[in-house]
Amino acid sequence: MNLRDAGEGALIRKIRERFALPPSHGAEDAHGVSIGIGDDAAVFDLPASHSAVFCSDLLSENIHFRRNLHPADAVGYKSVAATVSDVGAMGGIPMYFLISFAAPDDLDFSWIAGFLDGVERACRDFEISLLGGDCSSAARIFVDVSMVGRVRSGHAIRRSGAKPGNAVYVTGSLGSSALGLRLLRAGKLDDAAVRRHLYPEPRHHIGLAVADRTHAMIDISDGLSTDLTHIVEESKVSARIYKDRLPAAPGAQDQDVLHGGEEYELIIIADDLPAVIDGIPLTRVGEIIDSELENQVFLIDGTQESLLRPSGWQHWH
Amino acid sequence: MNLRDAGEGALIRKIRERFALPPSHGAEDAHGVSIGIGDDAAVFDLPASHSAVFCSDLLSENIHFRRNLHPADAVGYKSVAATVSDVGAMGGIPMYFLISFAAPDDLDFSWIAGFLDGVERACRDFEISLLGGDCSSAARIFVDVSMVGRVRSGHAIRRSGAKPGNAVYVTGSLGSSALGLRLLRAGKLDDAAVRRHLYPEPRHHIGLAVADRTHAMIDISDGLSTDLTHIVEESKVSARIYKDRLPAAPGAQDQDVLHGGEEYELIIIADDLPAVIDGIPLTRVGEIIDSELENQVFLIDGTQESLLRPSGWQHWH
Repeated sequence: MNLRDAGEGALIRKIRERFALPPSHGAEDAHGVSIGIGDDAAVFDLPASHSAVFCSDLLSENIHFRRNLHPADAVGYKSVAATVSDVGAMGGIPMYFLISFAAPDDLDFSWIAGFLDGVERACRDFEISLLGGDCSSAARIFVDVSMVGRVRSGHAIRRSGAKPGNAVYVTGSLGSSALGLRLLRAGKLDDAAVRRHLYPEPRHHIGLAVADRTHAMIDISDGLSTDLTHIVEESKVSARIYKDRLPAAPGAQDQDVLHGGEEYELIIIADDLPAVIDGIPLTRVGEIIDSELENQVFLIDGTQESLLRPSGWQHWH
Repeated sequence: MNLRDAGEGALIRKIRERFALPPSHGAEDAHGVSIGIGDDAAVFDLPASHSAVFCSDLLSENIHFRRNLHPADAVGYKSVAATVSDVGAMGGIPMYFLISFAAPDDLDFSWIAGFLDGVERACRDFEISLLGGDCSSAARIFVDVSMVGRVRSGHAIRRSGAKPGNAVYVTGSLGSSALGLRLLRAGKLDDAAVRRHLYPEPRHHIGLAVADRTHAMIDISDGLSTDLTHIVEESKVSARIYKDRLPAAPGAQDQDVLHGGEEYELIIIADDLPAVIDGIPLTRVGEIIDSELENQVFLIDGTQESLLRPSGWQHWH
């Protein structure tokens, strides 16, 4: 059965059954959901002394994923994980999300079922709830997730707070998503990097744990070179990072580590952080420096220093 | 110049300059935006005693609009207006939104500029602010707007509150969007229905004004027959509407009035409402009835009564 046979009504009923709110959400909770899927809009409360954190991430077929390469549940999982990562990079906690979904008439319903499996797994893993969305036909699959989280008012971490003398940390390891995509294309499925590419692990718990000690933060969605450049440009500083300190994933090449996107690791600008939080290593890879030149990232490789230009993913190029 | 020549960075810089927050938003406002466009996520506050209203609406090229028919600014305007209408149908006030935007590499930058003109006009007309979003390349244009508004906690109006004996009202007139699309296809541009189709006027001010006296509400995005069916199904009642009372737009045909989508008028289920609010007529078109049959809408035409099946827009059919 495909979408044309089933129709929009059947799809929405299926989603509504599967993502029904728990009974405790039926009434007006103190700080919960009062209206979920199935009305013109969802309605929920934020806890006192908290601000809303609001972001969206889209996945476009044949750009972010290919149907013959990426399982449907990975598309569902990753679309949600990307927004969880963004909320985490503000020091926030993800809460509620919407999915806008477009797909061709002949898309088999089994693809939708797989996609929803991935979304459901993301809801469990990240302790978040699907509250609604929109759907449409389209020539290609298109998924946009919009997420609202919370952060203690006045405690969100921007990209713009880095100061000369601060240290540059990264969480986890680098290069696994780009390596995983290469392995996936080569037909290797049973590999840690492939799993990481398909089912990313956003570091929102770490973002929250370090927020009080952090001056600036960003998640690596477009590659270390590009996202660290965002930090130095927004903070009006420069940065120096040491190639031999970068925590490369096993098997990752320089290009993967320096420029690979969809890492969903965090770049954290702080004074001093523990080496491990919740089992995830935090590696000090460099420092923020003052610079009379433009706001740039320098890469130190032994005795050589070079400019690390933002060379990660850019759309329309 | 097209998107490939300009690149993603240039597009984001342009949007950021154009939709910069006013200076008063730079610091942490009492109930405003503390972080706008240009970070991993936006951050804002809700006023005390208010809940968040959260919805999204997507426009897919060649489904919702055609580039050779719909001006770019109308696509921008309508994409935002659709979410304003949804928030209004909950009795809420729209506040902040994100745009996720995908487009082909060869899309001319003048199209983007026109699109942003429409978004900017929507910001002014609806007193709302763009806080961020995402972008991607894609074979066709795809726009998803996610909106957060506010509603006094416990005062959101659902689809499910209609009771036998309540009256059924509709705002404004019906059929103008479907009529406008037909006129647009025929090359007529200078017509009220065409303007209404291109630049819809959501009735969020009326939704807010009547909220305290309203049992159930929905906006007409998929046609009167389909959206009134949503009300009767969610409320587990039936409805009877009178054909000669329906406020048809001048020139609109029965099909436009009964089933035309993208009206962005409201269906309001209440006991008694004024005939005009803010210059917009509210027409009593029927009543909610108990029914031993399934939850259905009956259309009375003189002495004839027929079943009004939901025959508005449905994707993938």
